[in-house]
Amino acid sequence: MQIDAIPSVNEARTEDFQNKTTIVIDVLRATSTICTALAYGSAGVIPVETVYQAKQLHPGDHLLAGERYCKKINGFDLGNSPFEYMDPCIRGKKIILTTTNGTRAIYKAQKSTNVLAGCMLNAPSCAETALQFKRDVTILCAGTHDQFSLEDGLCAGYILEEILKRNDALHFEMNDFAMAMRAAYLLHKDQLPDILLNCSNGQRFIKLGLSEDVQYCAQMDKFQIVPILKGNTMLPADTQSAL
Amino acid sequence: MQIDAIPSVNEARTEDFQNKTTIVIDVLRATSTICTALAYGSAGVIPVETVYQAKQLHPGDHLLAGERYCKKINGFDLGNSPFEYMDPCIRGKKIILTTTNGTRAIYKAQKSTNVLAGCMLNAPSCAETALQFKRDVTILCAGTHDQFSLEDGLCAGYILEEILKRNDALHFEMNDFAMAMRAAYLLHKDQLPDILLNCSNGQRFIKLGLSEDVQYCAQMDKFQIVPILKGNTMLPADTQSAL
Repeated sequence: MQIDAIPSVNEARTEDFQNKTTIVIDVLRATSTICTALAYGSAGVIPVETVYQAKQLHPGDHLLAGERYCKKINGFDLGNSPFEYMDPCIRGKKIILTTTNGTRAIYKAQKSTNVLAGCMLNAPSCAETALQFKRDVTILCAGTHDQFSLEDGLCAGYILEEILKRNDALHFEMNDFAMAMRAAYLLHKDQLPDILLNCSNGQRFIKLGLSEDVQYCAQMDKFQIVPILKGNTMLPADTQSAL
Repeated sequence: MQIDAIPSVNEARTEDFQNKTTIVIDVLRATSTICTALAYGSAGVIPVETVYQAKQLHPGDHLLAGERYCKKINGFDLGNSPFEYMDPCIRGKKIILTTTNGTRAIYKAQKSTNVLAGCMLNAPSCAETALQFKRDVTILCAGTHDQFSLEDGLCAGYILEEILKRNDALHFEMNDFAMAMRAAYLLHKDQLPDILLNCSNGQRFIKLGLSEDVQYCAQMDKFQIVPILKGNTMLPADTQSAL
């Protein structure tokens, strides 16, 4: 089984996705937010690339959500802080979400056989679900404006480690970037909140008064929910149907 | 002082080099070979991008050297194995060198104020020399055919760690990729030969019967020589003139 990690969206090529299970990671904050939304009862999250697409798709009973440069889009119901998605108003609702990097990464990964959303919050469950599909795995770090982001790389290492420790019998091959991210994760796994607050996005979030979002997104193994793309909507993966 | 690491040549932008000291890393094998050539008495290494350029530049008393896909170029005096550069025939000679990734990375870095060649063999001395220039540092991993290579990333982490431990007084800022490479290096620093033999290029070199090259290039702190680009030629850095 081949497991490749890719540092940022602009480095992904079509062959990285064909016949693969792709795990998209945008720890700060899109995939953490999608995971939280489904855990708190949203009926599904529809990721779209642009504000225009979000508005075009918008029927009255869906919620419009998203950010640009970490700030809620004018006129939208929700921004991109996971705390907003704990509100009872999202229960049973579909959410149309557009973010700067994460939803673009999900869009790019659509050529894959399966697209999952991974984050620190659901990494072990995400690894479990990916293994059940019995396909090669691509871990796509969304990054920030086409640059590598450390929090996504550490999460890639976390999910990779969870995959490896679940199946000693399978022979795993990794690309060099996956090996590097696994090493970085193994060194830092006991200090993730501190590391996330110190990296480039962490520093930016602190300046914007969003350090609680960083602390929240640094939590490991909080949810068993694994968002999977079905049609245009991310829904909780049904482990049985994956088998 | 800002220290940024870049995963591969195609991700480098012009602003990564302007007014900077750039350390180019191609552990397997260009920068290890250049370092070895200077340590064994070559009068200088002229890195060029293409076989055509190498032949155009070639006066009778220089040596022609290089590889494509790890193999010596037909009609050239030397390939790209560091062991070839220990031969007394290179003493006092200039060497025109073209390789698949490393010399291209040096060419790309030419917009920098200073261009150094770094490898495991000279990492501590390379860190020392870079600090003496008192400029922001870019560490450019050459990679392999535009993909990240683990051995270059680990060497970036090694040089970074050597820079950090030499100057507690300076305030260092790093980009996220540099932070990740430092972590990967710190985890693996006591097993570098094994890790290098296991990564993608290591496996390829073993298949080509070149595992001794990998073992050689995995040696840490073997030379104090730091190749620096002066005009079109890499020469040993003169520490005094750097001050």
